[in-house]
Formats: sequence, C-alpha cells, structure tokens
Amino acid sequence: MENIIKVKNVEIGKGFVVMAGPCAIESLAQLEKTAELIKKNTQILRGGAYKPRTKPSSFQGLKEEGLKLLKQVGDRLNLPTITEILDPREVALVASFVDIFQVGTRNMANYALLKEIGKSGKPVMLKRGMSATINEWLSAAEYIFAEGNQQVILCERGIRTFMTETRFTLDLAGAMLAKQKSGLPVIIDPSHATGIPALIPPMVKAAKAAGFDGIMVEVHYNPSQAKCDAEQALTPDQFNEMFQ
Amino acid sequence: MENIIKVKNVEIGKGFVVMAGPCAIESLAQLEKTAELIKKNTQILRGGAYKPRTKPSSFQGLKEEGLKLLKQVGDRLNLPTITEILDPREVALVASFVDIFQVGTRNMANYALLKEIGKSGKPVMLKRGMSATINEWLSAAEYIFAEGNQQVILCERGIRTFMTETRFTLDLAGAMLAKQKSGLPVIIDPSHATGIPALIPPMVKAAKAAGFDGIMVEVHYNPSQAKCDAEQALTPDQFNEMFQ
Amino acid sequence: MENIIKVKNVEIGKGFVVMAGPCAIESLAQLEKTAELIKKNTQILRGGAYKPRTKPSSFQGLKEEGLKLLKQVGDRLNLPTITEILDPREVALVASFVDIFQVGTRNMANYALLKEIGKSGKPVMLKRGMSATINEWLSAAEYIFAEGNQQVILCERGIRTFMTETRFTLDLAGAMLAKQKSGLPVIIDPSHATGIPALIPPMVKAAKAAGFDGIMVEVHYNPSQAKCDAEQALTPDQFNEMFQ
Amino acid sequence: MENIIKVKNVEIGKGFVVMAGPCAIESLAQLEKTAELIKKNTQILRGGAYKPRTKPSSFQGLKEEGLKLLKQVGDRLNLPTITEILDPREVALVASFVDIFQVGTRNMANYALLKEIGKSGKPVMLKRGMSATINEWLSAAEYIFAEGNQQVILCERGIRTFMTETRFTLDLAGAMLAKQKSGLPVIIDPSHATGIPALIPPMVKAAKAAGFDGIMVEVHYNPSQAKCDAEQALTPDQFNEMFQ
Repeated sequence: MENIIKVKNVEIGKGFVVMAGPCAIESLAQLEKTAELIKKNTQILRGGAYKPRTKPSSFQGLKEEGLKLLKQVGDRLNLPTITEILDPREVALVASFVDIFQVGTRNMANYALLKEIGKSGKPVMLKRGMSATINEWLSAAEYIFAEGNQQVILCERGIRTFMTETRFTLDLAGAMLAKQKSGLPVIIDPSHATGIPALIPPMVKAAKAAGFDGIMVEVHYNPSQAKCDAEQALTPDQFNEMFQ
Repeated sequence: MENIIKVKNVEIGKGFVVMAGPCAIESLAQLEKTAELIKKNTQILRGGAYKPRTKPSSFQGLKEEGLKLLKQVGDRLNLPTITEILDPREVALVASFVDIFQVGTRNMANYALLKEIGKSGKPVMLKRGMSATINEWLSAAEYIFAEGNQQVILCERGIRTFMTETRFTLDLAGAMLAKQKSGLPVIIDPSHATGIPALIPPMVKAAKAAGFDGIMVEVHYNPSQAKCDAEQALTPDQFNEMFQ
Repeated sequence: MENIIKVKNVEIGKGFVVMAGPCAIESLAQLEKTAELIKKNTQILRGGAYKPRTKPSSFQGLKEEGLKLLKQVGDRLNLPTITEILDPREVALVASFVDIFQVGTRNMANYALLKEIGKSGKPVMLKRGMSATINEWLSAAEYIFAEGNQQVILCERGIRTFMTETRFTLDLAGAMLAKQKSGLPVIIDPSHATGIPALIPPMVKAAKAAGFDGIMVEVHYNPSQAKCDAEQALTPDQFNEMFQ
Repeated sequence: MENIIKVKNVEIGKGFVVMAGPCAIESLAQLEKTAELIKKNTQILRGGAYKPRTKPSSFQGLKEEGLKLLKQVGDRLNLPTITEILDPREVALVASFVDIFQVGTRNMANYALLKEIGKSGKPVMLKRGMSATINEWLSAAEYIFAEGNQQVILCERGIRTFMTETRFTLDLAGAMLAKQKSGLPVIIDPSHATGIPALIPPMVKAAKAAGFDGIMVEVHYNPSQAKCDAEQALTPDQFNEMFQ
C-alpha cells in the first residue's frame, strides 16, 4: 500500500515536504509577509486560527477571521494550508477554508473530534499526544480510519519527559517506529519539540536523513513580536538558510 | 474562601468522600448488584456510560442507556452520581441524568469541552492530564471558572512516567501541591494510578492521612467479567474491608 | 521471614522509625544543636560527611572529620547513625564510625560499591535510583545479598519525571510494590522527593498510614544557613510539630 | 578551542567516527571474527570486559581476560579500543590495555570513579546518565576536568522516559544542546537507545546529518548467541550495509 496523501499539487509521503508559517495568525500583514518570505522553501502554509493555550487569558487566535486570512494568503501564493481544529462542531467551518486539519497534542485522544474529522474525509495531520505511546497514537488514528477516512499524516512534536532544558523531547526513534509500523507519512515538528531555534536546523537535517516525510516549522517575520511561542520561531532568514 | 461543593446530601471538600462503582456500566444487574454491595461505604456512585478507549474496537459504553441506568440506581439507593463526559455536544444530555461531570485524563486540555461544562454551572471533577504539570492542571480549571462555574473538584489519577510496573505513577505530593495552591477539593484515584488491587488499600489510607478530600475507586461485583479495566477493579468485599 | 534489621536499640521493619538530621554535617555545633532539638522524635541520626554534589565546586562534605562528629554526637545522645558512602575504598573507614551505610540515588547501580558493602556485613539503606524500576532496585539489592549481607533497608526518595514543580516525584505506590515483593523494610524520604517543606508533613502522614517502615527527613537548626539542600530542610520546630 | 581528542590515528571531534564491536567480549574467536567483518567501516573497536548487569547472576564479563583479548585484537587490526570501567580501583589496570575509558550510564555520577579517571589523563567517553539533564551531564564532566584531564567525549545513549516501545528514548536534541554548550565531541549510541535493529540505520543517518561526531554501535557476528543485549546487536552485514 502506498500511503501518499495528495493535497492540491503536493504529495505527502513522497519526498520531503516542508510545512511552515507562524504559530498563530495575527493579521493579514503578518501572515502575508511571513508567507512571502518563506514561500520558495515551503510546500504547505501553516497558521493557527484556534489556539489552545494553557491559560484562558492568553491569546486564543483570530478564529474564523484567521481561517479567512489563511485561505486568502494560501490562495494568492498557491500554497495548500493546514490549521489546527479544536472542536467537533467546527469541522465543517474549518474544512471550508483549509486543506488539511491539524489535531494538536492536547487532542490526540479527543475521540469525539477524531470521529468528526473521520467523517469529513479530509486530510488530517494527527500530532502525537505528549505522553502517548506509539500504540496509543496509531490507535487514535484508527478512530479516523473507522469513519472511512484514510488520509492520515502523523506528526511527532516531542514528548514530555524529565528533560526540560528543551521544551519537549523529540522522539525521532519512536516516530520512525510509528512510520515502520503504520506505513503512514510522518512529519517532524522540531519547533515545538525543542523550543530552541539553534536546535531546529540540526533536527531538520536529522529528520530528512532518517527518511521522514517532512517537517513542520514555525516561522515569524518578527519573532520578538509573536503573540504565541515567540521564543521558538525562526526568522525567515534562519528558515531559508536551512535549505541552502 | 471555603471550597465546598454540595451535591445533594454530600459535601465535597469537607471530610473524606468515597466515590465508587464500576469502570463501565454494563447492565442494570451489574450496576445495581455492585452498588448495593458497596453502598454502606460509598457517598457517590460512579459508572462510565461513555468510555474513551484506546482502540475504537473496544467497548465504548452503553451511552444514553448507561446514563439512564446510573440515574435509576442512584435514585433508588439515594446516591449522587458521577460520570465521564467526552463531547461538548452532550453536556445538556449528560447533565439531565447525573449530578457531577467527570472530565477524564485524555480531555483535561479539551478546552471546547471545558467551556461547555463551565456554562452548565454543574459540578465537575477534572482529572489531571497524564502528563500535566500542576500549573497546566489549575490553568485548565480556569477555563471552567472563566465561564462562571466555580464548582470544580480536582482528581489525581496518576501521571505517566518511566515507571510501568504500576499502570501510572500516583503523584500524591503533586496533588497536595495542587490542593495547597488552589484551595480546591482534591480526590485521589488509586485504581487508575496503580492498576494493582493490592496497592489500592495502602494508597487509600495514605490519601486519607495526607488530608485529601476523598477517593474514587473502581469496584465490580465480579471483576473477572468486567468489560473495562478488569485487572484493577476491587471486589465489593475488598472494597468494604478497607473501611474496617 | 521476618526482615527486621536491628541497629543498637532500634528495630527497623517493626514499627515506624524516624531518621532525621542535617543534609550535610557542617560543624560540631551545627550537628549537636540540630540533634538535640530533634532527639525526642528521632530514632536514628543522619548526617552527610561525603556529599555527592552535581558540581565539583560545591561543598563536598567534611569527610573523615564529619564521620567523627557524627559518631561523637550519636554516642552522646545515644542515637544510632547513618551516613552516605560513595567509594568502595572507604567502606572500612565509614564502617568504623557509623551504624548504617546509606547508598544514594546516584550509586544505586554502582555495583563495585554494593559488593564491598555486601562484604562488610553491616546494615545498609539502599536508596532507589532516580530512574530505577522496582525490578532494577531489588536487583541492585541482590548484589549486596550475593556477598552474604541480608541487612538491606530500601529507601524511596522520589523518581525523576516530567513533574518538576516538586523536586522529584514521590512514588509511594512503587515503593509499596517494592515492599510487597521483597519483604524488606522501606523508608520514605519526603525531603528529597518533594523539596518543599509544606509537602513534607502530609507525605510523612501518608507514609505512616500506608504502612511503610519509617521516614528520613532533613532537619537543620537554621535552614537558611545550610550548606546543602537549604530549601528543603525543616526547622526543628516544623519537624517536631509533625509528631504531635 | 578545538576539542579534538586524538587516539592513535583517529581524531574524535573531526569528521564522523564509528565505534563498533560486541556488547561483551565473549572469546577470542567471537571478538576477532566480529572485528574482522566490520573493520572496513570501523575506526574504534568496542568490547565490554566488565559488564554492569541488572542482576548479579547475569554474565559479568571476562574481566582482565577480556581486556587482554581486546588489546590483542585491536593491535592486530590496528584499531584503537574502548571499554567500560566500573571501579576506581581498576583504572590503572584498564588503562594498561585500552585506549579510551568508557563510563556507562549507571556510573555517570559515580564521582569517585570520575576523579580517578581524571587523574589518569587518558581519554574517556562519558555516557549520559539515563535520567541526567544536560546540566548534570556536563557537570559530571567537570569532575574529570577538575583533575586535569580535558580529554572527554560525551555519548548520548538514550534517556529513560514513559516510552518503552523503544528501550530508551534517543534524545538527539538534548545531545546537540550538550554539544553546543560544551564544545565537546558527542557520540550517539543508537543500539542502547532504541534496542531495535531496524531503528539503528535511520538513527545513524540522523546522527551524521545533524552534525554529531560519531556513533557507537553494537555488532555481533551471531547476535542470537550473544551473552548480552542479543536483541539489539546488528549482524556485520547489517552494519556494513549502513555505510553503502
């Protein structure tokens, strides 16, 4: 079985796909400026419209307005888009604006959400729960499969361990085990996993050499002004430099 | 501030409250038989109607039928009831049958669900995410508070660590820190935390001596026949023996 | 088999034994003053002469001078003594001054050290490695048994997990499993496990109620001046208050 | 500062160095046969003479006899050698037979051993403790530096986390942080980290691409007969295939 997921002109599971963009969509100017600067090395544009923040008082995203901006910029630059979804009641709305659903680490085992996404038939990138075993991760994917949707991409974004000098612990070996066991495409997210810009380029190189299917990286045209995860965003220059 | 949550005739946050019952509601006979045998040492009857299982092929609970059975048995024995809720769209339905919502470890950071529960104004027991820090746990509670619902009970059910000779690692010190920081009632669940019946009585005694507000324990009149978590359920005799 | 370890007038494994004293022996005055203030609630006097510190530039203990002070104060107050040993070449020296060897978390799997202690035939308290499973911990004890020394006491001092709001994670359930599997006495060390004075009394109560064989607690007559682990030491007043 | 450690004709910290050989030296025939088959892709020959096993009843290595065999085979094939040392009293003996000391994960914080190795002035590869932070790991290296020995190589061999579907969790990001902070050469050991032969080649490729200084891999000419860590050893064919 070939597990290739086609999203517009991009094939995930064949070659090495780069998903990049800001953590949160903040404004048209911010998204557009960032996207233009990274376009040459990016196949899929990411941007968060619904942000699951630890505290309810933190910026929660532009919501539907953010979805519209993402579609607008993606369309203009001819880049397929991906965004996180948090609520089973918003599946149809989000589907009308973006190309790929992203299920974040907090919701890997939110089965009500997974079932609705399964019914939508749309591609979904399922991030690993921060304390999920490979068995639990692949079993979560089964909730999507069970509704008839086979278009599942996995994303390793770091697991929670005693090691807090990096934000999380990037588990490349576990992610490779998931790839070998499932045959699904696996994307590596070194931004959330490490939380440290200087560690992102070597981990991107490691991910590619190991045979993973791509990366997801947070880029902001001005990280110090980012409303979310400012400390881990790459500048467009840092991002583009990785591909030289 | 006194953080006492009144549920019918029971006050949580004052004295030591025992929540007990089967992991999953399987039938009227099973629930009733178990409840009758443990009634004398139980203040709140638990039973799962919606079961979030690792695999979609595992028993997922009796759903609405389970809620009805729980209400029926709770009413007959005059025991307030608690059950897990998984989907923000089911808040009104579940609220119509049970006295306390339970948010499980998988959904601690399912903010869409927490917000709906917040709006309901009904008591909720928020289990700690299996890899949640105390800060993250208390911040999740803020999502409920922010909707105007202050009736939050915390429940420590074990965290995920390298230590797999028990099912999870019961973090009594962390739970006490949560209690000291928040002033909220904290319930200890040694069944999920340990997964080993012989460890449950000593951990119940520890929880009481340390000053926690109660326990939640899984009991099944015939554990070997349980459809869920069979290995960790106490028999009614083992359960009652703890209180002598 | 009764696993009771007799040390002078104290029987470990029968009743609840309190081991207390400063983290590090700093001077005769410091040790004596602390010991006198806690004597009424203490059965065994602890004090570190060889301190395994993360950095070589930190205070490493008074070494042989510390051993002499510990013996002097223990003799005068008629308290058996316990101290940590770090080097297999120092077994005879340490044995000549103290009643019980302590093997710290860093050296649980230092088999060269365990073998020498095994040959000494002297009681030893083997702390759990901070990432040791119960199987590994009990297997480490076998290295001591294999040399003919059965006088092994176990000590749970917290394991290393993602949970860093406490210093370590006190694993009472794991420690109880170790006790049930091995029949050895198990002592709980809430000072190192939590690192937070306010958590020590509830964890001491939990340890006693659960059926453990005792506690080890760090006390300093003036914690703010302690040369080692100052933040977690109880004052003599805080210590004595736990026993009222 | 250039941190290049020269061992005979090999420079560690410059290029990508391959250390390979059996977990334990079992016999002349076993070591020789394995070494000959992997020689073309190996710069440093590894083999354990002193084996720290979880249980005292497991094979503990050939000890001095193993050291002699390692020297004999290393000399004949013109390969520098590395072996684990467990006891500060054996530093001189081990130094007389091998080129590089290896300090294993159990002994990272065995400061008595580190000090003796520091005094020896001989190159040492310091494996990360299985639950050591980067700060603790680099601080352990300071114990060696403090005795005047700067020839320290770091080795990441996997940390202990909840993730037990691999033997340990290979922490490439943490290891890269250690490299960036210390400037020391860092070697990756995917054999112990993963425990799964199919994961070793992708992790070797990842280590090289990320910019690490080399790998340590366990190879046995007949893994099914290995007396130690049989399940994770590569065959010579599997090993050589990685370099094509």
